[in-house]
Amino acid sequence: MNGQSTIAAVSTPAGTGGIAVIRISGPDAIEIVGGAWRGKPLKEIAGHTATLGKYVSTSGELIDECLATLFRAPRSFTGEDVVEISVHGSVWIQREIMADLIRRGARAAGPGEFTQRAFLNGRLDLAQAEGVADLIAASSKAAHDLAVSQTRGRFSREFEALRERLIEFASLLELELDFSEEDVEFADRANLRSLAGAILAKVERLADSYASGAVLKDGIPVVIAGIPNAGKSSLLNMLLGEDKAIVTDIPGTTRDVIEDTAEIDGILFRFTDTAGLRESDDMVESIGIERAKEKIRTARIVIWVFDPFADAARQISEIREIMREDPDRKLIVLVNKSDLAGEKNHRMTESPDTDEFIPETGHLHNEGNDTASLTEGAQRGDDADASFESVIKDAIPFSAKTGEGFGMLKQRLKEMSYNGYDPGQELIVTNARHYEALTRGAESLRQAIAGIDSNLSADFIAQDVREALHFLGTITGSVTTPDLLTSIFTHFCIGK
Amino acid sequence: MNGQSTIAAVSTPAGTGGIAVIRISGPDAIEIVGGAWRGKPLKEIAGHTATLGKYVSTSGELIDECLATLFRAPRSFTGEDVVEISVHGSVWIQREIMADLIRRGARAAGPGEFTQRAFLNGRLDLAQAEGVADLIAASSKAAHDLAVSQTRGRFSREFEALRERLIEFASLLELELDFSEEDVEFADRANLRSLAGAILAKVERLADSYASGAVLKDGIPVVIAGIPNAGKSSLLNMLLGEDKAIVTDIPGTTRDVIEDTAEIDGILFRFTDTAGLRESDDMVESIGIERAKEKIRTARIVIWVFDPFADAARQISEIREIMREDPDRKLIVLVNKSDLAGEKNHRMTESPDTDEFIPETGHLHNEGNDTASLTEGAQRGDDADASFESVIKDAIPFSAKTGEGFGMLKQRLKEMSYNGYDPGQELIVTNARHYEALTRGAESLRQAIAGIDSNLSADFIAQDVREALHFLGTITGSVTTPDLLTSIFTHFCIGK
Repeated sequence: MNGQSTIAAVSTPAGTGGIAVIRISGPDAIEIVGGAWRGKPLKEIAGHTATLGKYVSTSGELIDECLATLFRAPRSFTGEDVVEISVHGSVWIQREIMADLIRRGARAAGPGEFTQRAFLNGRLDLAQAEGVADLIAASSKAAHDLAVSQTRGRFSREFEALRERLIEFASLLELELDFSEEDVEFADRANLRSLAGAILAKVERLADSYASGAVLKDGIPVVIAGIPNAGKSSLLNMLLGEDKAIVTDIPGTTRDVIEDTAEIDGILFRFTDTAGLRESDDMVESIGIERAKEKIRTARIVIWVFDPFADAARQISEIREIMREDPDRKLIVLVNKSDLAGEKNHRMTESPDTDEFIPETGHLHNEGNDTASLTEGAQRGDDADASFESVIKDAIPFSAKTGEGFGMLKQRLKEMSYNGYDPGQELIVTNARHYEALTRGAESLRQAIAGIDSNLSADFIAQDVREALHFLGTITGSVTTPDLLTSIFTHFCIGK
Repeated sequence: MNGQSTIAAVSTPAGTGGIAVIRISGPDAIEIVGGAWRGKPLKEIAGHTATLGKYVSTSGELIDECLATLFRAPRSFTGEDVVEISVHGSVWIQREIMADLIRRGARAAGPGEFTQRAFLNGRLDLAQAEGVADLIAASSKAAHDLAVSQTRGRFSREFEALRERLIEFASLLELELDFSEEDVEFADRANLRSLAGAILAKVERLADSYASGAVLKDGIPVVIAGIPNAGKSSLLNMLLGEDKAIVTDIPGTTRDVIEDTAEIDGILFRFTDTAGLRESDDMVESIGIERAKEKIRTARIVIWVFDPFADAARQISEIREIMREDPDRKLIVLVNKSDLAGEKNHRMTESPDTDEFIPETGHLHNEGNDTASLTEGAQRGDDADASFESVIKDAIPFSAKTGEGFGMLKQRLKEMSYNGYDPGQELIVTNARHYEALTRGAESLRQAIAGIDSNLSADFIAQDVREALHFLGTITGSVTTPDLLTSIFTHFCIGK
């Protein structure tokens, strides 16, 4: 598209630094920079070598002493001739050299234009190019690893394998189509159906992974809930302080909702501390509680901080309500203040006859075995179902003071974040565009299967399969349109 | 000092970008990066070549595919082995690679530590090293050009020439000293005195240039003053808008003092718009006026916007007051609203008999020839002196509407900013440390001259000359101390 022009941009982050790198790519890159260059002539320099020289503007003024590194087509990121100029990182120098390069015939590169050229020149496919943008934006290990896997073509290989299976399917159908007048049914319909079913299952699994992938990329929303004074804020501080990887401080929109991000074992979490949940006549507090409930609704994981010294029945009914609203939401129950209950628990462990210490549940200020009080309270519930029971069974005894249970909490958070997907073993989709393509591809495949089941003629089925092929093809860019490229690359940063 | 350790830092500006560059310098640079490198072994790569490879952490994880460029000692910026790794510019990647390099034995570089090593390895002298920091901080052409000239050693050559003359002087004295018992006066005292006087004059001229150099570097403070509604704010907008090079927006600490910077012909100015000066009973307005007067006191240039339709005598008395406070302060008088007076002026030019239009001065709302009203007002002053008269004589007829006089104003600002120094012809000192060294050097030279004049014995005079040599030597670093180096390089950015 832009094959003829030569583009230039500052590729390093905006601002002042020790050095900045200006990248020029295109057929005239060496000539344009060469015109400003005082030193060994750039044309005489081998690819992949750096040479020290002076950049002199069109008006003859020395802008900087700098280092130029040459990459000759096609051995460059874009596949074109590329010159990278490493200059002193003043904003003034960056601006002047850019202005001078434009005077000399370069064009200021748009967002992602270097990567777009790499794609157009066959150096990357579309999914790899998108991986580059994700790689640059990644702020946690998990997001980084997903992006690396995408840039390295793992994505593309998997999608190409899927497409090949679809093409095989399509060709069987087309064969049948060619001979349709002869009423020959080459493709065994049962075999076709099982092939389509297998492909659909794979596409659906990939599409489903997006729910995990998207949050892995942007940070997994975790809400900390519980009744007032259960210990929510100290838990938040522990989660944020322990790993010392606080990325942002987002002041809450109300004094009651505080958000912060932290990386735990390489995964970025967005923790929200909420107002304690309780009935309140106070207007302001009621608003805070309503907001807390809203936050819980949008969370993927809720940590309920259970206070064993407070009304167990009320807390259990709140937990039930959270689970009833969305059974897919992950819930972790922490039974807090285990250090206070510790002595009695300890005795319990030593002698089996300490059953006497198990308190009645459902009372304020009950003391003693916390998990037991929770379990008993839960058993008294009316509509307890299996998943609810398992949540209660898996409750973690916890102490902010001693750190008991914190390791287990982090382990649980990590397991839940991948939601059954193992990024080391299978692909996780992180890109909304890929998700959409997969969803639409799955829809076409479902229609194809319905066509087989309804014994429709092969040409109808082939139509659906071609659609599925089209949608999957847009992911790696084997099918593409200028609009698609524009919409993808405008989300890049300038200079990449 | 740190010759044994290998240092590493992100050298590009902080934040996310297309690429970031991490620089490693020291005896183990190649080995340390080589341990993480998957690709062609770094040890086998020639200097000044870039090679694509993978950076793998000590825990075996792929951090990034990146480009490493090798610079072998002594052909590098620091004079040591240097590896520059160009990585995808995510904050995560930058952080991880830095952490991994440190695990592999590198040390995080302090501010300016690469440049400090370049100095210690004789790649740069101290003035050149300081020029590097200035170059990176430069935000205007004038500041940039001064820094370039300093990095290129023009400074150093001039100071070394000065020192050589001083050394010649000192050796003549020492010679006399050696033979002092013999009462031989080798050095002709008159010649010595004239040599010392010439060196002193040069040192003083350089020291004096600092007043211009420092403001050229940081932006020249210009205050726009005048009575209310004289047209100050529209002038400010014109100065800022015309060149479209607004660098910062500093909201005024009061609604009445607005500051903004703009580059005019490559020189950075800090324009301050002030409250109109008038007597006021209003408390808030009085504070604003007091602040305006404070601003005027700290300005190097004051643009007085003269309103020809308002009380001329009052305005002239304000101008007199400004000049009386500091005769060195530069003043430009703009006679505003020349477009309104234009018609009559125009007629005046056409027929000499329009003298009738020259209004009485000292009246509100007088109309007609603006410059004339100013000149007449000035002539009525009692203590008019030569410089005041020349300021009035050089008043510029101005119109924000037609743009009349704007070019002349910019020309005047430019001339005043260099304050009689021509950076193309002679050295301008921009560094406070150099200024201090020059001032103390001058003081020693003055004592030496006084010693010659008082016919003191050569050993006393030689003592003063040695001191002068010491001070001048600290500028290029031919004389240096660890403390001096620390204080210089802590002002650098990290990564340079």
